[in-house]
Formats: sequence, C-alpha cells, structure tokens
Amino acid sequence: MKLKRSGRIGALIKILCDNPNQIFTLSYFTNKFNAAKSSISEDIVVAKKIMEDLELGKIETISGAAGGVKYIPFISAEDTKIVLEEICEKLKDTNRIIPGSFLYMADIIYNPSIVRKLGNIFATKFVDEKIDYVITVETKGIPIALMTANVLNVPLIILRRDSKVTEGSTVSINYVSGSTGKIQAMSISKRAIKHGSKVIVIDDFMKAGGTAKGMIDMMREFEADVKGIGVVIATKEPKDKIVKDYIPLLILDEVNEAKGSINIYPNKDLI
Amino acid sequence: MKLKRSGRIGALIKILCDNPNQIFTLSYFTNKFNAAKSSISEDIVVAKKIMEDLELGKIETISGAAGGVKYIPFISAEDTKIVLEEICEKLKDTNRIIPGSFLYMADIIYNPSIVRKLGNIFATKFVDEKIDYVITVETKGIPIALMTANVLNVPLIILRRDSKVTEGSTVSINYVSGSTGKIQAMSISKRAIKHGSKVIVIDDFMKAGGTAKGMIDMMREFEADVKGIGVVIATKEPKDKIVKDYIPLLILDEVNEAKGSINIYPNKDLI
Repeated sequence: MKLKRSGRIGALIKILCDNPNQIFTLSYFTNKFNAAKSSISEDIVVAKKIMEDLELGKIETISGAAGGVKYIPFISAEDTKIVLEEICEKLKDTNRIIPGSFLYMADIIYNPSIVRKLGNIFATKFVDEKIDYVITVETKGIPIALMTANVLNVPLIILRRDSKVTEGSTVSINYVSGSTGKIQAMSISKRAIKHGSKVIVIDDFMKAGGTAKGMIDMMREFEADVKGIGVVIATKEPKDKIVKDYIPLLILDEVNEAKGSINIYPNKDLI
Repeated sequence: MKLKRSGRIGALIKILCDNPNQIFTLSYFTNKFNAAKSSISEDIVVAKKIMEDLELGKIETISGAAGGVKYIPFISAEDTKIVLEEICEKLKDTNRIIPGSFLYMADIIYNPSIVRKLGNIFATKFVDEKIDYVITVETKGIPIALMTANVLNVPLIILRRDSKVTEGSTVSINYVSGSTGKIQAMSISKRAIKHGSKVIVIDDFMKAGGTAKGMIDMMREFEADVKGIGVVIATKEPKDKIVKDYIPLLILDEVNEAKGSINIYPNKDLI
C-alpha cells in the first residue's frame, strides 16, 4: 500500500505519540509506509513543525547508529494552569469534605483523563533527568505514577505495604509517618530495581513527608539516585517537611469541616 | 495560524488519539486550525481512511446535536497475537520462578509500554458494552485496569483491602479466596459508584476466581451490572472457576520449581 504525504504524516504522528520517548528508526517507517527514506525525512520535518506550532510536544531526531525519531510530550505552562485550575475547582466542592476534615478525591486521582494530564505535567518537569524508573507506594499514587512512567517510557515500581510471597526475596524498611507518628513498613522485591539507577518518586499526597522519606530510604538500599519527587497535593502546613525539593502540583491550605470551606490552589512555580 | 491539509490531519489525529473515545465537535477543530467546516470534514474523511488502512483504530463521526468525531482504538487479532506471544516468551524465563512455584511478573504488569497494549486488548473486547466504570481491587491489577479505563474513557474504581478514613462512608464485604480458603475483605466509598451502572472487572490474575466473585458481589451492593471480566493470566486449573464468562489473555498451565519449567500460552480465542 502506498500512502500520500498527508496519510504518512498522520500515521507517523499517531505511531510516535502512542509510544512517547521511544525511538523509531527511519527504516521502520520506510517499511511500514512503503516509501523512500527521503520522503520519510521530509514527512518528519513537517510533523515536527506541526507539533511545535500547535504546542503539542516535540519530535526529536537522533543521529548515529542507534538513531531515529522520537516524540517527547510536553505541556505548556498555560495548559498546566488550565488543568490545575480545573482540578482545584472540582476539589473545592464542599460535598467532598469527609468527617475528620479529609477531602474525597478518589474520583479525581483515579480518572484516566485527569491523571494522564497530571502524568504529562510531571514528565515535562522530569524528562531531562533521564531516569530509569518511576517509584510510588501503593495505592492512591499508582495511577498518576503509571501515567508519568508511560510518558517517560520507563518502568513503574510499586512499593508494597507488606511483603508478598509472590515477590520472592524482598527488601523491607520501616519508616515513621510524619503526620501520625506511627511506624509503617514498605517492601519491594530485591529484583525489582537495578543497583545504581536514577529514579523519581511520585505520590498523590504529602503532609509531613514521612512516606516520601521512606521511599528515599528504600532507594538507598538499591544505591539509587532520587532525581526528583512529585506529589499531586502537598499540604501548606507543616511548612518544613521531612523532605526538601519536592514538586507539588497543588497546595492544600485548609479543609474546614465546621465552616464548610476548602482552600486549595495550584503551585505558582508551575504556571 | 493557518495550517495546510497535511498539518491539520496530523494534528487532528494526534488530538483524537490522545483522547480515545472522547467526542470532539467540528467547531473545536475549525477554531483550533482556523479552517472552514468543509475543510475539516474532508480532513476527517482522510484521517478515517488512514486509520483503517493501517489498522490503527477507527475514527467515528457522530451526527446530531451532541455530535462530532471520536477515535476508537482497536487492536487486531494479529497484533494481539504478537503482543501476547512476546509476553509469554518473557514469562517463560525460568529465572522468574519464585519459591512456592510462583511466577515473578511485577516487571511485566507494571511496565507502561506493555500494560497500555493489554489495556487496548481489553478495551477492544469490551468497547461495545458502553460501560460506566472499570473496577479492580488493589494492587497488581491497577495499572492494567487504568490503561483499559483510559482507552474506554471511563473512570477507574479501585476497591481497597481495608476501609480508609479518607474515603468517608464505605461499603465493605467479605469474600472467600477460592484458592486459599481464607476470608478476605474489600471496601469502597459509598459515593464511588452511581447505582445502576454498567461496569467491567479487570484484574491481573485468576486462580479459583474468589476475588473476581468478591468484586461481583460488591457490585451487587451498587445494583451495578457486570458486563464482563478480564484477567491477564488465568490458571488452567481449577478448570471450573467460581465465576464464568471471564476473558483471560494468557493461560498458565504450570510453574514447576523442581523441573524448572513454565508453561504459559495466549488464550486461543483472542488470536
């Protein structure tokens, strides 16, 4: 089958965008589209320009033996602002207040159309770190961590609360929850992470930072280098958290059950 | 900014494919591309043909007031076969055998580039059921369930093993694990699921089917209609599982620690 230029460009964009941060050789497309290398090269130039003009991400050409072309998703500060403000609006609904001044947010952080955007925001922040894994701990952070890993095209590692018989030899650590003071455990299969890897930590919520600190301690067991920490929501207080250098998407100032008020806003550094 | 045809088609495909099963109006594209309705209509015809010719999914036009255009991902039986056989090859590595004749598979079922394909396979099977939610239970099935929900453009519901204070009022049920005979619990916030919804259940593994049965029982509490069950791996034995009408992607016949052998193969009905 012979495709016209517009057909080739459409299909090329589709294939690249379905597989973010994955390198495709020119031969892959010359075979698939039954076209000459020169035509594909021209198609890539056009595709690049479309993506840049419409701020839909970046198509990058890599030269050399392992070379080819890949798509790097990107979300602009402007679009980040729109996404985060929309989520804040949803979270400000006082029907979300749960006894104990908690905020119901499972419907937001499990919604694929929302978490894929949040994953895109984290990936845009961390893409230059060239990481090997995204790390999270069960359960609520998993969807966002997976979508971040998907965009960065790296495996996701899920730390478990208990060690499981199906995981083989595990490494377990205890850590102190910064907000409750309770001792908790996390564990992971010894074979899950290669020693000396570069990782980022993604979670849904940070109060004092004890869980994030636990994940960092666990990474030390694998001599892994934590290149960044991203959380969807960080509480404003305590200001001094156990971990430094984390990137929150949203800041939760207050959930007041008595007054029926919620104060949450986007991280101003991102928008 | 004025785009040429090839530019518009590339961008249109990118936007539709990033948002599977989501309807975009024609006006969305006329505004975004600064083009006439007639041009966009022609672009859609071309985009449709590209996707069909290359078996990359389907672009569907919906007429009427709530009309527009949407992308329905699709994976062919041929590609399904390639994906499932590749995973089987990986899982047959005897280094994966864990004492107790378990199979280590966290690296497979948490790998975004693999689970997005598995999600696509499940979505292709269940797209006509017009479901409202994808249901799973923590933890290992979450990535695959999320990717299925992503393609179907519906929310994911994660049943928890314990009820959490952050979830508000919860519904809890006990169920008997079919393989171990142990009584286990699962719970979910009362507000998570609208009564009378249509759902599918997705999980990573099924032995006797007790967990899947537990999820079906939980759905009864919400008067939800379970339209299908998908699992990545089902064991060959016991043949008579507690639930009927489930779709496994792979069948696990044997993990023999003593002999160092693994027998696993794709579900022949899918390929």
